[in-house]
Amino acid sequence: MEALLKTETESTETAPEGCTRSLGIVETQYYTFAEPPEALKLESGETLGPVTLAYETYGTLSRERSNAILVLHALSGDAHAAGFHRGEEAPGWWDAMIGPGKPFDTDRYFVICSNVIGGCMGSTGPSSLDPRTGKPYGAEFPFITIADMVHAQRHLIDFLGIERLLCVAGGSMGGMQALQWVASYPERVRSAIPVATALKHSPQQIAFNEVGRQSIMADPAWREGNYYETGQPERGLSVARMIGHITFMSDRSMEAKFSRKLKKGKLNFNFDADFEVEGYLRYRGANFVKRFDANSYLYITKAMDYFDLSGGKLINGRAVDTRFLVISFQSDWLYPAYQSQEIVRQLKLKQVDATYCELKSTYGHDAFLVELEGQTTLIHHFLEKTYLGERNGNGNHR
Amino acid sequence: MEALLKTETESTETAPEGCTRSLGIVETQYYTFAEPPEALKLESGETLGPVTLAYETYGTLSRERSNAILVLHALSGDAHAAGFHRGEEAPGWWDAMIGPGKPFDTDRYFVICSNVIGGCMGSTGPSSLDPRTGKPYGAEFPFITIADMVHAQRHLIDFLGIERLLCVAGGSMGGMQALQWVASYPERVRSAIPVATALKHSPQQIAFNEVGRQSIMADPAWREGNYYETGQPERGLSVARMIGHITFMSDRSMEAKFSRKLKKGKLNFNFDADFEVEGYLRYRGANFVKRFDANSYLYITKAMDYFDLSGGKLINGRAVDTRFLVISFQSDWLYPAYQSQEIVRQLKLKQVDATYCELKSTYGHDAFLVELEGQTTLIHHFLEKTYLGERNGNGNHR
Repeated sequence: MEALLKTETESTETAPEGCTRSLGIVETQYYTFAEPPEALKLESGETLGPVTLAYETYGTLSRERSNAILVLHALSGDAHAAGFHRGEEAPGWWDAMIGPGKPFDTDRYFVICSNVIGGCMGSTGPSSLDPRTGKPYGAEFPFITIADMVHAQRHLIDFLGIERLLCVAGGSMGGMQALQWVASYPERVRSAIPVATALKHSPQQIAFNEVGRQSIMADPAWREGNYYETGQPERGLSVARMIGHITFMSDRSMEAKFSRKLKKGKLNFNFDADFEVEGYLRYRGANFVKRFDANSYLYITKAMDYFDLSGGKLINGRAVDTRFLVISFQSDWLYPAYQSQEIVRQLKLKQVDATYCELKSTYGHDAFLVELEGQTTLIHHFLEKTYLGERNGNGNHR
Repeated sequence: MEALLKTETESTETAPEGCTRSLGIVETQYYTFAEPPEALKLESGETLGPVTLAYETYGTLSRERSNAILVLHALSGDAHAAGFHRGEEAPGWWDAMIGPGKPFDTDRYFVICSNVIGGCMGSTGPSSLDPRTGKPYGAEFPFITIADMVHAQRHLIDFLGIERLLCVAGGSMGGMQALQWVASYPERVRSAIPVATALKHSPQQIAFNEVGRQSIMADPAWREGNYYETGQPERGLSVARMIGHITFMSDRSMEAKFSRKLKKGKLNFNFDADFEVEGYLRYRGANFVKRFDANSYLYITKAMDYFDLSGGKLINGRAVDTRFLVISFQSDWLYPAYQSQEIVRQLKLKQVDATYCELKSTYGHDAFLVELEGQTTLIHHFLEKTYLGERNGNGNHR
């Protein structure tokens, strides 16, 4: 990484220090396609339509339409990646990375963030109305894959008139989508930044997802997925999210944040939360059920578990001139560095241009959202180099 | 470790190779004490009585009563550590370690295994009848600690007429009890073998336990702990156990055992178990609820989380001539090696005789039950040296 940074900082244009600004108020937009009798053909063999994608855009598409970057979200993310929604205090989930003067510099690039199908944040998912019945799909929603999510996004990119994306970027499941974009549409992606992700879930990753699913399905309120009139399985979904939060942090970051601090200064000798870490998990679980749909959790975790671009499937024969910046974090035990190294190995085997960086961090998997300094510099320079190469017509001749 | 093994194998008596035998049929025994108005005073300030402990013994107590070893079990263990119960096919949980010619050599030592209070395997716990009401305690059972468990065991050791134990040994929560024996009754313990354990739970360890508890308490069948007439919260307890099984294995042992093998050779595109790892977890969860009481799971995990012998509390002032063999395993991320190293550090600070060994293993926390070869040699030689020292009257003069 030292060597890399040294090379990159020789680049002519660097971001002026301390000159980042907020995007201010932004709004989610919606694009609907695959209207009947046209429907999105899914990997399972089933079809889905109509399909709505919630998305946001920041910055301006250049006349050459060559500055578009697609940012992709993780399991519980949404289209609101940056800026503020009117009346809300918290900015989008990657606001530190997207905006004027930030690594995804909206003074220069046109940044798009699309919610995934299967979700519950404005895109078509199990809580959407099934046009055949007029009721929410529930467990009648077809099973989807990461490739299906990306297929739907391709419709959006077509609609926006973008032939080739300057970059696809995302962490965790967002990284899987970035990889899938290259696998499905290599000629439409100039560069990719998969962060803290994998070519496929290990059995341990599948196991954590499966326990979350079992927790939801064990809740009688789940009612085989048909709970939209009765209220969702809050307790099961809450436990699933609590498990998730343990895997997002590291042993060390939990120690730093909570240690064995007691909520009331002494042990309760009852089933209340004795330790702060218990209170934190309960709070996170209880909050999550207010904003996320349990069926979406089931469908999206299945899509993650099904994802498998190992064994040459990432670069499947066609020549690929996509540039890669692959990033992992040292304390991330949910998506360990060896999985990012395997991505790089597969790319190198196919002679694809790839830079790999394992960033120092104690934050575990959360690092891709909170460990900003290292990512900022890397991504800023990588995008700049890619963009300058593209404008100089070197896109295919690196 | 190499150096240690070299030294130890110079010892005169080594176990003859391949000369281990089974204990054959064994039976659980029961000792009841603290009959009203006498009651066991608990750390919480509450009392418990009468108290029954289920226990088993193997081998013969010597005339000098100097060859007694107390073996202590983990969260879901029981008094049945070795040999076979009549009509059962599986031996006790540490059978590979206990028996004639085995490390805990019953031709030489008198081995005792006691179930913990709070459990559901014959000792007094939440499913026992509350003498005040004639009904199961349920959530009226008082909260217990590891020190309370050990306090109850001390009554059993008194009853067996043993003044000083040659050794206390156990893995995971069994290791906590071994440490607590030294903290509570240092003069009654000649040596201790804490395996894959800790002086205190980290916030990550508390967090995993807490999620298991929340899963049980989220199950409406839990009924605030009063479910003994209606059936226990099987689904919640099953999910808790599934979480446990992930933490008992390592990323690598899961990869070796399951990889991404599919149960039916192809993806289901439904909520059935697609991957073998999912089927395994569901099976383990479903089996666990047949043999373990959900309230015991709640009470015992709380006791583990409350346990804290850090900061000098392990050796609290009194001179201790207890010898220690501290063992950890390389791939154990639930009780990482640094926690065992901290035990050793605390012992060395108090000039206590301690040997530390981090054994190679890919099995994760399960290693203390399945990674036998390394433990066998270490424990065999450690006990032999301790026993010979004791018989030669060197007990206090090492």
